[in-house]
Formats: sequence, structure tokens, C-alpha cells
Amino acid sequence: MILDKKLNSLLDIDQLSKKDILYIFEFAEKLSSILNNPVKKVPVLRGKTIINYFSEPSTRTRVSFENAGKILSADVINVSSSGSSDEKGESFINTVQTLEAIGADILIVRHSDSGAPYFVSRNIGIPVINAGDGSHAHPTQTLIDLYTVYKSIGNIEGLNLTILGDNIHSRVSRSAVLGFSTMGAKVTFCSPTTMNANFLSENVSNEDIKNYHSVTYTSDIKAALSDSDLIMTLRTQFERKTSLVFPNINEYTRLFKLTNESLKYAPDKAKILHPGPMNLGVEIDGYVSESEKSLINQQVINSVAIRMSLLIILIGEHTLDSI
Amino acid sequence: MILDKKLNSLLDIDQLSKKDILYIFEFAEKLSSILNNPVKKVPVLRGKTIINYFSEPSTRTRVSFENAGKILSADVINVSSSGSSDEKGESFINTVQTLEAIGADILIVRHSDSGAPYFVSRNIGIPVINAGDGSHAHPTQTLIDLYTVYKSIGNIEGLNLTILGDNIHSRVSRSAVLGFSTMGAKVTFCSPTTMNANFLSENVSNEDIKNYHSVTYTSDIKAALSDSDLIMTLRTQFERKTSLVFPNINEYTRLFKLTNESLKYAPDKAKILHPGPMNLGVEIDGYVSESEKSLINQQVINSVAIRMSLLIILIGEHTLDSI
Amino acid sequence: MILDKKLNSLLDIDQLSKKDILYIFEFAEKLSSILNNPVKKVPVLRGKTIINYFSEPSTRTRVSFENAGKILSADVINVSSSGSSDEKGESFINTVQTLEAIGADILIVRHSDSGAPYFVSRNIGIPVINAGDGSHAHPTQTLIDLYTVYKSIGNIEGLNLTILGDNIHSRVSRSAVLGFSTMGAKVTFCSPTTMNANFLSENVSNEDIKNYHSVTYTSDIKAALSDSDLIMTLRTQFERKTSLVFPNINEYTRLFKLTNESLKYAPDKAKILHPGPMNLGVEIDGYVSESEKSLINQQVINSVAIRMSLLIILIGEHTLDSI
Repeated sequence: MILDKKLNSLLDIDQLSKKDILYIFEFAEKLSSILNNPVKKVPVLRGKTIINYFSEPSTRTRVSFENAGKILSADVINVSSSGSSDEKGESFINTVQTLEAIGADILIVRHSDSGAPYFVSRNIGIPVINAGDGSHAHPTQTLIDLYTVYKSIGNIEGLNLTILGDNIHSRVSRSAVLGFSTMGAKVTFCSPTTMNANFLSENVSNEDIKNYHSVTYTSDIKAALSDSDLIMTLRTQFERKTSLVFPNINEYTRLFKLTNESLKYAPDKAKILHPGPMNLGVEIDGYVSESEKSLINQQVINSVAIRMSLLIILIGEHTLDSI
Repeated sequence: MILDKKLNSLLDIDQLSKKDILYIFEFAEKLSSILNNPVKKVPVLRGKTIINYFSEPSTRTRVSFENAGKILSADVINVSSSGSSDEKGESFINTVQTLEAIGADILIVRHSDSGAPYFVSRNIGIPVINAGDGSHAHPTQTLIDLYTVYKSIGNIEGLNLTILGDNIHSRVSRSAVLGFSTMGAKVTFCSPTTMNANFLSENVSNEDIKNYHSVTYTSDIKAALSDSDLIMTLRTQFERKTSLVFPNINEYTRLFKLTNESLKYAPDKAKILHPGPMNLGVEIDGYVSESEKSLINQQVINSVAIRMSLLIILIGEHTLDSI
Repeated sequence: MILDKKLNSLLDIDQLSKKDILYIFEFAEKLSSILNNPVKKVPVLRGKTIINYFSEPSTRTRVSFENAGKILSADVINVSSSGSSDEKGESFINTVQTLEAIGADILIVRHSDSGAPYFVSRNIGIPVINAGDGSHAHPTQTLIDLYTVYKSIGNIEGLNLTILGDNIHSRVSRSAVLGFSTMGAKVTFCSPTTMNANFLSENVSNEDIKNYHSVTYTSDIKAALSDSDLIMTLRTQFERKTSLVFPNINEYTRLFKLTNESLKYAPDKAKILHPGPMNLGVEIDGYVSESEKSLINQQVINSVAIRMSLLIILIGEHTLDSI
């Protein structure tokens, strides 16, 4: 293990130093080559049990972890909960402790409540990966985004990333700020005033404030795009009740949707990111998501190698050299 | 590959020539012997990822594909969608492209919308198998039916098949016509007048019309059964809104249910087929489905070998000789 | 096979003699050591297909069987049904016969209707394990409980077991009485009068009556605990409509919850069991479930080895010596 400190669980991206993240990239690079073999299967995690515990519906993240685990020859068991009252509070501890006792070697946890994976981690003795918790964090998504940029551009240091959308409620934004800052990029949040206004006062703890002070806020999409190397547009989460901060959807789309027109304000070299699933025509046009500027499909492709790397680092016996 | 033209996806049965279908039977025959081994497992698709994408609930088809894949040592990942608005239109493309990017080697698609697997196939670069789409097609079911008849009777050429039920809305009927015609059988649709009346005008494209012209329509079950070698009775799909063409259910049952009595009109040698799941007492009596005439259980048994064959043909490296 | 008579299916615990149960313990003991290997995987059931058919939601039992099967290298396929009308009556037979025809080597059946696994077993030719049926039986849970006590205390003969809760409606209680009686323990049901009153008249068949005659009934928790070696408290099943026999929940909790206070009435050596999932604060306090007296976590841990043993005995080729 070359990581700065032994990594027991991945709960948020700020556990990782720049060196750690580059180490994970090296792992992912090596594993990507396995994914191109005719037989995509290695016995690296044979005999390990991975349990996906998802209290929110998810296709891409669950399937990505499931495929990552299976390619490594682990057994993968899916558990979904409706997030009903049975699964909350004390019973939630009981459930995850049961999954540990049944023989899970690692839990992948997605939960609608911010902080739930921390709660799990404190109450069981096996590693936990946060696969998205409430509006708090989504560290594996950020590692995927970083790795995708790193493979496409060659470096991250000094790049300008603009994130369009409801940054206040987005776990993707929150982890992106921490991760891209660690790697030396500058982050701008660009959204309607209602979405940016009270971010600092409501959502940021003292511990985080040093990171968030580095974020620039603006409602001026032209200005924001003008010096962006990377433009990430967030999924518009109609299913979450954000009406208080969300203006009229048509107005949002008219002003903030990423289109061929709005991209004229950005440098030619700017690359596009989206964590998915996309609402085409709402926050991004299909022309843009499928353009040469788009790294969106690469983000999905890279998701498997990144998650394979994390699984090996957290529960495998292999080092980078022995794979 | 001996198939007439390289098969990239199986979207409907009319892609296959008689020679292709016989080739698939040879494969299935060889694989059936594996199913009788004490260890039902061969490494033919090791390292391949099969994703079952089912937007309609299904037990038998999903489990049959899942077991077929696992016996061949593939990894099988299930994705079900409620068919909600999230999964439709542009987002549906996004979802299947994501499943490809995550590493699926093949998608098995069941969808409530006719044509959905074609739409998928045009938008991704991996093979697709249509596991039933709306009222359009169910090609693997027809291959299973053909193979079951072939194994039971020894040939298909020249046989008379009568299909009882709501043929207008049945994907099973539609694929059966194409497949049994290709193999030289004659098909009769037998149903209440309301179910047959406007079939040609509403559901058949120009391209298909040559096949459908060969179908005989009747409401006279006695006449239809009198020279049938094969009698297929369809599942009465109460869950679909076919009230306009569906007469009173008791009347339907009284007139069209397959019973020991109605079978007296059929030749002794006639065999019974049903695509399942059966509504016993509605379209068929339990005495009939469990009688010696019934091939229904054989259809289910044969489903796994047929689907194994298709998986190997579409994504395997093996030929018939190398298995 | 050393079992007294060849075991084809495990439908209830009363199929097993004391000798059979001890034989299963020997198996489980041997398999427990595999669970402690760095690579928890043996090829004992390679090429076998296990289908979990669950008509009631369950996390722990399903995951425990799934992990048991996968560690033994079987393929495990999950089928859940909503218990809707489609799944009932004749269609239910059709469904399980289909699962057999698709190639299941064994069905694990959980069902909301008492007796459903017997019905399944009579209609298919492969082994069935009852994973809990209505208010009738939960034999694998009882084997887990017995094994846990056996490993912790060293013997079961002569122990006093008190079961707190709604014994009338509990499949766990019902199987526990049969299993613990077979092993020579004495069982006391302790619950509010409304829960014990009409147990014999309503729920016990003539065949069972010899076992149930051995049960002592009381509403006096102090007296019941005073000579208990084992105290099992049942899950309060709010989701079942037991209002007629269930008094006010606060009153139940005040009188029958297992707390540090109520445990003062029990001998120091008394051990605590709970079939899970627990309602902490309702039938048991967190202090108690996590105390040294508690065997609850061991019950979950032991569940996998017990279920692995049953799977091997029912569908494996291995004997105790050849594993």
C-alpha cells in the first residue's frame, strides 16, 4: 500500500491526497488493459463477497460496481431497500451489521440520507464505499471524473472547471470541489442566484470551509464559460424537492442549458462532463453530449476500472505490481 | 459461422433462414447434452457480461436467459425498469448506451413498446436479443417452439399449426407466423371475429404482407382443430387493455378454451403448445396442459439450450465443432 | 448420507432426528473453517443452480442463502414475487414447475401462506427448502439457533428455553418448539395472556400435539426467566395484523421487553437469542442485544454454514469426509 495512510473505507474524496489519487489512476490504467482482453476476468477477488446496499434506485452506479466486482471474480450480492422506516435508525444498523455477519467483505452503500455511509462505517468492521449519500458526497464519481480528465488532457493542475446546475444540493458538486481542488484545479459554480446564494451558510462545516473558499460563484454563464477548460453540467433532479431554490424550469433551460450556442463562449479546447443520467434537452443538448468535446461516455467507461481499483485496494491482497 | 449472413442481433425471427434455424437446432442439441451433465457448467462465455434489461416484469424469460448465461460461465447482471418516464425517449437511449459503456457484451431487452429493441440496436455497438417487445415480436420464444416441435415430431415442413387466442395483440403469434412459415408449416389464427377482423389493416407492414397472406383466419374452432398437427393456445393477457377486441371472458372460455372435449375435434396425433405463463381454466385446462399431447413443459426445458445457442452465436468465440 | 432417512426436502424441523441434527452440525463445523479461509470459495456445488423464490420481502434470509450458495460455487438466481394473485393458486404451481424446467437443482421458498413449500414440494421433482412459510415453520432458523447454542454452551439436552413474544403467530416459535424438544430442551412460551390463550385449539394438529404438550405457557416473565438457560425474544411483527391478540404496544414493551432490568430475574449464565430483524427498544434493548449474554450476532454468522450444509446434503455429491 503506497497510500499516505491506510485506507479502510472510502467515504469522501478528501480522505485522499494527490499522491493517493495518482496511485489509484495507476491501478485503473493497469486494470483498463484487462477490460480489453477477450476474457475480461481475473481471479483477484475470488472468494470475496461484495454487497451493494442501495436505498435509492440506481442503475449505472450499481451495475458499474457489480460488473467491477464480477470481473475481479468476487461474488456480488445486491440488496435494495425502499428506504422505508424499517430501514432507518436502529434497524438500519441492524441491517448492515447483519450483512457483515453473513460474510460481506465490503459494503457499497448508496443512501438518501447524507452521512449514512459514515454511520455504517462506524458500526461495522469491514470497509465501506460511499456510492452517493444524500446531498453530501459521491467520491467514486469524482475519482472517475478526475481520471477521465487526466486521461484526456494529461494533467489536472491549473485547469478551470465550471459546474453548471443546482450545486447547493448536489453531492457530485460537493465531492468535485474537494477532489479537483486537491489536484490543483480551480472550481466555479455557475447557477441561478437562488441556487448559489446561501451555500456557504447552510451546507459547509468549519472543516470544509478552507476548500469551499476556493470556489467562485457566479450566475453569469458567459463569463464562467469564457475561461473554462472543463464544463460539468449536473443532472436536473426533478425527483428531489428543490423548488425553493429552483426557478422555472424553462427559464433555467433557456439560460443554463449547455448547447452549441452557449459553447461558443467557451474556449475551443473545453471538455464536457456530466455525471449522468442526462436529461437531454434540459441541462444539455444531445448534440453536445455526443460531440467531440464530450467526455461523458468516457466517464462511464472509466467507471469500471476506477471501481475495480478501489475494490482491490480496500479488500484485495494484490499490489499494483502483482496484478 | 455458417449462418447465411452474419447475425449481429436477434430482433425478429425473419432475420433467420431455414438453414440458420436448423443450425441453431444443432447447437441446441449439442448444448442439451451439457445440461444433463452432473456439472452443468462450461467456460464458453467466461469473461463475458450479459445484461438483462427488462422493462416489463418477467420471471420465466429472465430466469431462462440468466441460467443460460451462467451455465456458459458468463456474468449476468439484471436491470429492471418500471418503464417510468425516466426510462423513455431520450433517457432510454442514455440508459442502454451506459450499459454498453459499463462493459456489457450483449443486451437482452424486454420492453413494453413495440420496436424498442430495434431502437436499442441502432444506438449501441453490441448485440441485442429481443426478449419480447410490445405486441411486435418474441423471436426466442418462436425458436423454442420450433425446436420443441422438431424434437418431438422430427420435422416441421407441412405441419398445420393453429393458434388460439388474441392473435392481433400477441407478439408470440406474430413471430410464430414468420418462423413456422419459414420452416414450411401452415398457420391458422383461430379467435372470435373481433380478434381477427382488422389484423391485416392495422398491424402488418408491406414487408410482412407476403408472410401474413399465408395465414388463414377463422372463428370456427372445430374446423380449425380438425386438421391441426399443432395447437398453440395463447396466454390471455388480462393485464393488457384489449377490451375492445376481447369479448366477455366467460364466453371466450366457453368457446375457445382447450379442453378434453374440444380436443376431440383434433387429430389424435395433435400436440399442444403454450408460451406460458398459463391461465389454467381460462385458455387451457390443466388436464390438457399435463396430458401426453402437451409439449408445454418441453418448451420450458428447451428454452435454456436455445438461449445458450444464441448467446454463443452472438458473442462467443466457439463454433459448433469447438464446444 | 448418514441421515436416518434420505432427506429430499427440508420442509420442517420435525423431519430431522437428533442424530440428523448432530450430523448437520458436524457439516457446519467443517464448513465454518472454509469461511475463515482467505479465499472463501469451494467448488462443491459447481454447475448447480439454486433458485431463491421469495414471495415475502426478506434481506437476511435471502442474502444468507445466496452467499451460502455462491461460496459453494453454485449459481444463484433470485426470483421475488409480490404475492399477487398471478402468483397464487394454479399459477403458483405453474411458476415453480417452470423454475424446475429451466434447470433449478433446488428451490428455496419463502411464502406468506403457511404450507406453500409443501405444496411446491408435492408438485416438483427437485428438493425444496422452506425458508419460512406464513405462521407455520422456519426450520433453517431453528437449525441455526440450535447450532449456535450447541457451539456456545456445548450441549442442548436439559436446557430451559423461554420464548418471549407472539408465539401464536410465530413460525420461529413453532419450529423452535419442535427442534429444541427433539434435542432434549424444555420450552416455555411467555407472552400476554391474549397471545397464549387459544394456541392449542387453533394452531396445533393432532400429529403435533405430543410436542406441544411439552410446552409450558405463562404470562409471568419473572417466573419464566428465573430458570431459563436460553431466552429468545421474537420480532414484533407490526406488519402482520395481529391486533386481536396483541395488546397495547407500550404495555407489551413495558412488561415484556428484554432489558438489563428484566434480565436480573434470569440466571447469570442465561444466553439471549433473537431471530432478527430486531426492533430495538420494542422487544429488546440495544444494551442487551450487544451484551456478552447475547448470541444474536453468532446466529447470523452461523446461518451461512448451516445453509451451506443443507445445500450440500440436499443437492451435493459430497459427504462429510470428502469436502
